[in-house]
Amino acid sequence: MDTDNQGAHAAVIGAGGGIGGALVAALAADDRFVRVHALSRNPAPSSGRIAAGMIDVTDEASIAAAAGRITEPLDLVIIATGTLHTEGAAPERALRELEAATMARQFAVNTIGPALALKHFTPLLHRGERSAIAALSARVGSISDNRTGGWHSYRASKAALNMIVRCAAIELGWSRPQAICVALHPGTVDTALSRPFQARVPAERLFDAARAARQLLDVIDGLTVQQSGRIFAWDGQEIVP
Amino acid sequence: MDTDNQGAHAAVIGAGGGIGGALVAALAADDRFVRVHALSRNPAPSSGRIAAGMIDVTDEASIAAAAGRITEPLDLVIIATGTLHTEGAAPERALRELEAATMARQFAVNTIGPALALKHFTPLLHRGERSAIAALSARVGSISDNRTGGWHSYRASKAALNMIVRCAAIELGWSRPQAICVALHPGTVDTALSRPFQARVPAERLFDAARAARQLLDVIDGLTVQQSGRIFAWDGQEIVP
Ligand SMILES: NC(=O)c1ccc[n+]([C@@H]2O[C@H](COP(=O)([O-])OP(=O)(O)OC[C@H]3O[C@@H](n4cnc5c(N)ncnc54)[C@H](OP(=O)(O)O)[C@@H]3O)[C@@H](O)[C@H]2O)c1
Ligand SMILES: NC(=O)c1ccc[n+]([C@@H]2O[C@H](COP(=O)([O-])OP(=O)(O)OC[C@H]3O[C@@H](n4cnc5c(N)ncnc54)[C@H](OP(=O)(O)O)[C@@H]3O)[C@@H](O)[C@H]2O)c1
Repeated sequence: MDTDNQGAHAAVIGAGGGIGGALVAALAADDRFVRVHALSRNPAPSSGRIAAGMIDVTDEASIAAAAGRITEPLDLVIIATGTLHTEGAAPERALRELEAATMARQFAVNTIGPALALKHFTPLLHRGERSAIAALSARVGSISDNRTGGWHSYRASKAALNMIVRCAAIELGWSRPQAICVALHPGTVDTALSRPFQARVPAERLFDAARAARQLLDVIDGLTVQQSGRIFAWDGQEIVP
Repeated sequence: MDTDNQGAHAAVIGAGGGIGGALVAALAADDRFVRVHALSRNPAPSSGRIAAGMIDVTDEASIAAAAGRITEPLDLVIIATGTLHTEGAAPERALRELEAATMARQFAVNTIGPALALKHFTPLLHRGERSAIAALSARVGSISDNRTGGWHSYRASKAALNMIVRCAAIELGWSRPQAICVALHPGTVDTALSRPFQARVPAERLFDAARAARQLLDVIDGLTVQQSGRIFAWDGQEIVP
């Protein structure tokens, strides 16, 4: 993390989510950070180091406007948005359950939204200092690790996100050689997103959001620029695409 | 390829494309096949073994209708649709060129369309005999092989397609353990899709569509069910996701 004399600046996109909210809290409690931009569709009031702002990753104008209001270079950006069961549509168990509109919605929220966030937020990263931008992906977005099938749209949208992250990392290498861009798997975290699917998760493998946030920030802290463009789990292990 | 006494049946989805058209011609000239369903948005007249039909992968009703008209079990299905430069939008060179609508269009044609084709055509594959269903993907859809960046939407849509193919292969393993489902990279082929990007391709690496079709059919012929769910290039080499 950057620790120049002015203190570090962070932004969390999807601050209204389970993990996003916990990331904001963890960063606001971290004395290295003097400002945490907490961006979400329904921003809570600003307080202390937390500057709340409106963003909806499915509305590019809102992303551009949120980025435009940030005047200091950013040391850390986390894109914590994502959806698994969209507007009542449960993740698919078989091809016959695929619906074009549901698939399109998953790509819009899980891939295109984060891609547009990378478009507008990578230019805010520090030049000439270590910085990091991470998007929350998922282990089930690994194609080679897929042994059980199902969850077609969610898996495909996360695989696509992993590709966008890779493209963004390569591009950052041209303009900001000290910037790190990765996809992160938070583990199974007790949030609205995972709630319907927790039954078979052993208790010690179900993280509360505060723990998940700490683990993710530790992983980001430990990354080097040589690892940019890749996918890492909550324990720092690399996930192959 | 299936070679029971009745002869084999194939379907090519995207028969109006450069590679799709060449696949139809190659299959129609192959005496193992008694019927080749040539499906496209603008079907040419039926002739000989070729049964032409209407399909638009962005219109699920047309996919369901096309599948519904096929009465014999299929030995081979190739999904040869895809788009790189959609409606005038060139592939992106940098994040700042990303546009939500262009990205959504690429996912619709390159990922959701083939996914819906898999939904409606996998149930037509033979039970109890070797059969194959292949979707044309692209080497640039490999996340780990991406070293140059760019072409964000196309790359992401093909990575997502590779995931859908993997899900479909797993699912076919339940119902049709002799069915093979793969993603294929045809090489750089002289078609409308690649034409603006051929300048730096050495002549011996630019295949005409007829050669590309033969090479792809040879690859499919050589596949075993153990290879289902993976990605193969025109020369039979596996591509990692
Ligand atoms: N929980 C897990 O077990 C788990 C496992 C693997 C991966 N992940 C990933 O971790 C990330 C965060 O998930 P979470 O568990 O914190 O889920 P969550 O509590 O449901 O939060 C997801 C956030 O994404 C944004 N979002 C969701 N649907 C949206 C839509 N239709 N349009 C615009 N924005 C939308 C919202 O942000 P705002 O409300 O702030 O606008 C929402 O709060 C996701 O990418 C998820 O895929 C989670
Ligand atoms: N050419 C190459 O060098 C190359 C390299 C790597 C991968 N590929 C892949 O190979 C596949 C075939 O490509 P090609 O070179 O034969 O390209 P092509 O000549 O442009 O044919 C693509 C076909 O896809 C269908 N299609 C395109 N846009 C569509 C849209 N908006 N809505 C619905 N259908 C649409 C059309 O099928 P109908 O006209 O039959 O309806 C079209 O003829 C694609 O998946 C491509 O990504 C090609």
